[in-house]
This record gives sequence, structure tokens and C-alpha cells, in this order.
Amino acid sequence: MSLFVQKFGGTSVGTVEKIKAVAKKIAGFKEQGHDIVAAVSAMSGETNRLIGMANEIQDTPDPREMDVLVSTGEQVTIALLCMCLKELGLDARSYTGTQVKILTDSAHNKARIQDIDVENMRKDLDAGRVVVVAGFQGVDDDGNITTLGRGGSDTTGVALAAALKADECQIYTDVDGVYTTDPRVVSNASRLERITFEEMLEMASLGSKVLQIRSVEFAGKYNVPLRVLSTFKEGPGTLITLDEEYTKMEQPVVSGIAFNRDEAKISVLGIPDSPGVASKILAPVGAANIEVDVIVQNVAADNTNDLTFTVNRGDAEKTIATLEPVIAQLGAREIVSDSKIVKVSIVGVGMRSHAGVASQMFNVLADEGINIQMITTSEIKISVIIDEKYLELAVRGLHTAFGLDNPEVGE
Amino acid sequence: MSLFVQKFGGTSVGTVEKIKAVAKKIAGFKEQGHDIVAAVSAMSGETNRLIGMANEIQDTPDPREMDVLVSTGEQVTIALLCMCLKELGLDARSYTGTQVKILTDSAHNKARIQDIDVENMRKDLDAGRVVVVAGFQGVDDDGNITTLGRGGSDTTGVALAAALKADECQIYTDVDGVYTTDPRVVSNASRLERITFEEMLEMASLGSKVLQIRSVEFAGKYNVPLRVLSTFKEGPGTLITLDEEYTKMEQPVVSGIAFNRDEAKISVLGIPDSPGVASKILAPVGAANIEVDVIVQNVAADNTNDLTFTVNRGDAEKTIATLEPVIAQLGAREIVSDSKIVKVSIVGVGMRSHAGVASQMFNVLADEGINIQMITTSEIKISVIIDEKYLELAVRGLHTAFGLDNPEVGE
Repeated sequence: MSLFVQKFGGTSVGTVEKIKAVAKKIAGFKEQGHDIVAAVSAMSGETNRLIGMANEIQDTPDPREMDVLVSTGEQVTIALLCMCLKELGLDARSYTGTQVKILTDSAHNKARIQDIDVENMRKDLDAGRVVVVAGFQGVDDDGNITTLGRGGSDTTGVALAAALKADECQIYTDVDGVYTTDPRVVSNASRLERITFEEMLEMASLGSKVLQIRSVEFAGKYNVPLRVLSTFKEGPGTLITLDEEYTKMEQPVVSGIAFNRDEAKISVLGIPDSPGVASKILAPVGAANIEVDVIVQNVAADNTNDLTFTVNRGDAEKTIATLEPVIAQLGAREIVSDSKIVKVSIVGVGMRSHAGVASQMFNVLADEGINIQMITTSEIKISVIIDEKYLELAVRGLHTAFGLDNPEVGE
Repeated sequence: MSLFVQKFGGTSVGTVEKIKAVAKKIAGFKEQGHDIVAAVSAMSGETNRLIGMANEIQDTPDPREMDVLVSTGEQVTIALLCMCLKELGLDARSYTGTQVKILTDSAHNKARIQDIDVENMRKDLDAGRVVVVAGFQGVDDDGNITTLGRGGSDTTGVALAAALKADECQIYTDVDGVYTTDPRVVSNASRLERITFEEMLEMASLGSKVLQIRSVEFAGKYNVPLRVLSTFKEGPGTLITLDEEYTKMEQPVVSGIAFNRDEAKISVLGIPDSPGVASKILAPVGAANIEVDVIVQNVAADNTNDLTFTVNRGDAEKTIATLEPVIAQLGAREIVSDSKIVKVSIVGVGMRSHAGVASQMFNVLADEGINIQMITTSEIKISVIIDEKYLELAVRGLHTAFGLDNPEVGE
């Protein structure tokens, strides 16, 4: 008999029929004797509908009132799910973030959870009730409704699991686990049985959008076993665990191939050599709220500097506009950008103990005739920036080379 | 400088554009130096949408979860209205029932307000803010969300006005006041400048559905001056006040003509005479949750009793089914029903001091050849049950006879 926190996202509760299916799934777990706390998102489309109305009123809607508005989305779902559970003969009780209470700071629209009061939920669980909690929302010290920001329902699930010391936090979604890479690119990508929190973080931030990064960080920090699995399909999903547990087992060198199409490359060329050049260029970019990813600096033959970095593709023009006055001031030669690039990464905790992974990666790309424009590495990941036309070629080549192809799936 | 509680119903806040118009109206009052607390309903259609989803799940949705569900409707409106006020440059703050807090008993779906904490609202008003409160909802001692039942937003407005000792509670609706009768029946009906709480109660319960009865009772009890006026049209509306204030002024004998089409007449004939016959028949009707309105009992020539009463038209069949076994037991001759009847009433505090109002009413009806089937009277009202085909004829005749025709409106 275990205590599971089960998080159901917007597509899992997108219609009344789907909410009924979720209730049946929960009832199945209850029948097996488990205790269940469900954390749910707004029905898919609902949050966008609410934001749409706000945007008809204010270009930048008031943050406090925005939270009052959008938090109704999850509140609708918790009530409907409890009705479905009751209709199945189960006892159930819904909780808004305020009712739990999920105490957060007062940063509206992007609040962080500070504490969760588990007392009432414990009483309900002891009484045999299913507890249904509105994801994504909390309440600050003054009783204001807050939200955790988009995707925050995952974080609610993990935080509830940590506070309740649940045996597992199960994130139900529309995919049946974490894959070695995007199956739309590599048809014989395989589902991972396990992955470490660290690897998951690298996979998520690199574009495998299965889980909210913050929820994975949170799960790692509090050592909450996290499982990603499908709402609509039976199966064990993917368990995300601590490194230590994982490394006891035989492990692959590379766990997955991630990629990100949403990057653009900005190069500032011919910068007269002087200390602090990189910071003079990147500080105003950061100040303009533009996130910088990969950064490479070279000294050219004529002793001037070239600085190249990547930003989200949508930020490319804004970056250039921000830098033009800076460039003039520094006396740099020119600024050029290229949006036809992608980032491809290999991720795996096994790299730590295996030399030569980088050169193997570069060899694979060279064999396919793919030119590497930029390289960046961390302990458990190696990323390259390449021409976007080579994306599929690179990912498929690496997937095969690192032994990730699923033998059960034909090409 | 006054403090007004302004209640805006569902049609007044039915779209984002209408909510913007409400914000402008509030801004106008603020410009004149008044303090405003707005109580708002859900956007029209929203409550029905939510109930519709619940009914897809449970025939009788769980009452606690129903309140969690439908209370989101007003929560959306308070957020949007505050955004509109902020966009106009006003400071504003929204409150759910829980946030205020509007303490109620735990009778879900039909809770009664027990107490309102005015502290935070006072602080906001002192700081120059518009306070926007979700109507219709409250919270019980255990933090459960409750609702006051349909139309409960009026009650919220009046209760807020009482708790804050507001100068006036203004109920904005889609009509510009209380009329001497329904203008759809009598084209030259006139708007009443004033009406007493008692008269309003009689008018409302008799089918002039401008205000929730409970809110009028509440306003009378706490002596909150209540004004009904139009959201969409300028004008003073109708002020609903205490009898004492009203009687200082010259007053008409009859203030208005109310009518109700939604009644059916049930007659139990030939009941052997014995004590407690009426109660033996009406007790099971009450137990079946059927509301009884007019009741008349006659002794027939053969010394048996006839008992006739009216119920809501939709309850007629249920009433007969409930009574059939009772009738058999009592040895009554038969039970007959007639749904083609209406109730027409004249209402006015002036009747108290004027004799002969009843006979004047009966004369008017007799002159038109209208047969009276039942009569019931109270201190400030006389009602008759007549054939429904005479409704318009009776109402128009009485409207003219009691001097209510608006001289400014042609026939």
C-alpha cells in the first residue's frame, strides 16, 4: 500500500469524458489499496481562454488579478474530478491552493512554493478519501491568490509528494515516458526505463518538453521519485531517480539525444582586443531580458575578437537592435546573425566515467559530412550547433552510434 | 461623499465590453468623490455552462463540489473588472468570498450569510481603492466554499452594504427601476420613484422578478436603502425604503399590480367533514417539497368540505400523484386541477388606511365580466385567481382604475 501523488495535465482533463477516465484510473489504484492525492491542471484551452479575455482589457494584465482569473481554471477541474470520483462511489474532497494551504511568496504569475500544510489532506487520506488539489496555484501570507507560472502543476505535484512523503509522484501526460529522442525524428527511439534527475534536466532544457524543469529540480532536491507516464495508455513510463541509485545499475554512456530548433546564432566580429569585451556585449543583452545559451569566443588572426552566442530564435532581431549601439561604441567590425541553425546534444551520466565520448560524437557528425559551428560541454552533456538542414541526419546518426535504437521497432 | 455598494448582475457583466462599461460607470462615481464597493455576478451564461458540465457527471452533483465549481464564475468577473478599473487609472482590488471573508453556514448551494469581515475592505477604501467582491459566494467555518443560491449576488450586495454601513445599495440590472406593473402587459406602466420593502416583497414574490426576495428581506431587516437602476441607461431608478420614511409623503393607495402566470389550481372535493382535514391534505404536499400559495376552504351544501389551493404550475402533476393515496384514505370524492389560471394582485401600503380597496378591485373585475375563482388578502395586498385568458384585461383595468397609468406614455 503506497501513497501516490498523481498529476494530470490539461490534455488529460481536457473534456468531461476525459475527467471521467481519470477518475476511473484513480479508482483502479484505490482498489489496489493505494492512497491517492491528485493534482490537476485546468482543462486544456481554458487557461488560454481566460488569458484572452484579460488581453482584451490590458496589454499587460495586472499580475494580482491575473492570478485571481487563471486560478479558476484548476478550480473547475478539481470540482468536476471530485464529482466523477463520487459518481464512482469513492469519497473525495477538492482543495484550492488557498484551502490546502500551499503557501508561496508574493511573486504573482511566477510564485515559488514555501510551505504546504498537510494536516487536512492527511485527515482525508486517513478517512479513505481521494484528495484532489488544484495545481499551479497557491496563496501568499496575506491571502492573495498566486500562481506558479505555466506548467506549474508539475511543480505542485512534486511539492505535494515531498510534503506528504509520498512513495512516488506520477506525472500523467500524453506521452508514455521519456524517450531517447523525439520519436517524430527517429522512429525507433526507445522509451527509457529510468533516467536521472540531472539527465532529465538536460533533456528538458534542451527541448524534450515532457516535464517542467522546475518540477524536476524540485524532485531532485527533495529526492521525490518521479514517474512520467501516459494517461491514455497502460505502461510503466519512465522513472526519474537519483544518480546514486541509478549508477548501481549497468548504465549506457549516453541516455538520450536532445535537440532544439528554436535557436539563432549571433556573431559580433572584429572586436578590438580589450579586457571584458564579452561582458560589455552580453550585459546589455541580459538587461534586455534575452536569454543567452551557447557562448564561444575566438581570437582572430588580426588579434581582434569574435564573440558568437545563441539566443531564442524569436529574440534574434531584438538582440541585434540592442547591440547595434554597443557595437559602435566598442569599434567592432560587424554583427551577423543566422537563424538557420539547431542545437543537438547527447546527454548521459555515463559520460562522467567514459573518455572519448566527445570525439565519438564529432566523428559521427564528420562521417555524415556535417560541419560543427559551435561546441559546448558539461559533465553529462555535449552540445553542438549545426546547420538546421542536418538536424535529422545528425540525431539519427548519433542515436544509432550510441546504441539507442530500439531493436523492437523497424526503421 | 457617500459610500455606495453597487451590485452588477450577469447581463451587466455579460461580455468583456460590458465589464468595461461597468468600470466606466464606477469611475464616474469615483470622480464625484464617492467610495465604491462593487459586488458582481458571473458573466451571463457562465453559471449555466458550469452547471451543464456538472450535470454531465452526476444527476444530483455533490453540493460541496458544486459550490467549488460555480464560484469560479464570479471569480472570473472580479478579476476582469479590476483589470478594467486599473486600465482606467483607478486603483482596485478583488476579493473572493473566502478572501473577504463572507462567513456563511455550511448549507452548500443555499448558504446564509452569518458575518462579514470588513477590515480589509475598509483599508482599501481608505487608501482610495475600488473594492470588487465576488457575489453569491462565501466560506464556512472550515474554509469550505459556499454559495448563496441563484440570485444570491443581490444578497451579497445588501449584506456588504449593511456590514459597511453604506449610504445606499444600488442594484444595477437591465431594467431602469420597479414598475407599477409589467410594461409588456401595460404599455403605460410607470416607474415608481419609491416603494417600501414590504411592497417590494409582495411585488417580487408575486412575479415582478427584479430583485431576489431574500435580498429585500435582508435590506429591510438592516434598514439598507436599496435602489434598483439600469446599468445601460441613466436615471434615478426606484428607491426601496422603510415604510416610516415613505408614509411621511403623500402616497398612492395602490403602488403596483403584480401577476403570476406560473400557478395551477388543485381542488379536493367532497371531503367528509372532520377536524384537521386541511392539514391532512397539505402536510404531505409540503413534505414533498411542493410550495403552496393561495388556500381556500369551503363547506359545501352536503356538509362535506372542498379544499382548493394553488401550486407552481410545474408541480401540479406531482401534487396530484402525492395526494391520490391521501384522498382515498380520507374518503374524499375527487381531485381536480386547472392550470389555466393566473393570480393578479394589487399591492400598496396605502391600503392600510383606505377602506374599500377590495370592493373597488372586485368592481373593476366585475365590470369587465371577469369571474373571480379565489381571493386572498393581506394587510398590503389583495390577490385574486382568475382564468388566464383574462390576465391582460384584468391588469390593464386595475392599472387604470387605481390611477397608475403614466400620463407621459400614450396607449
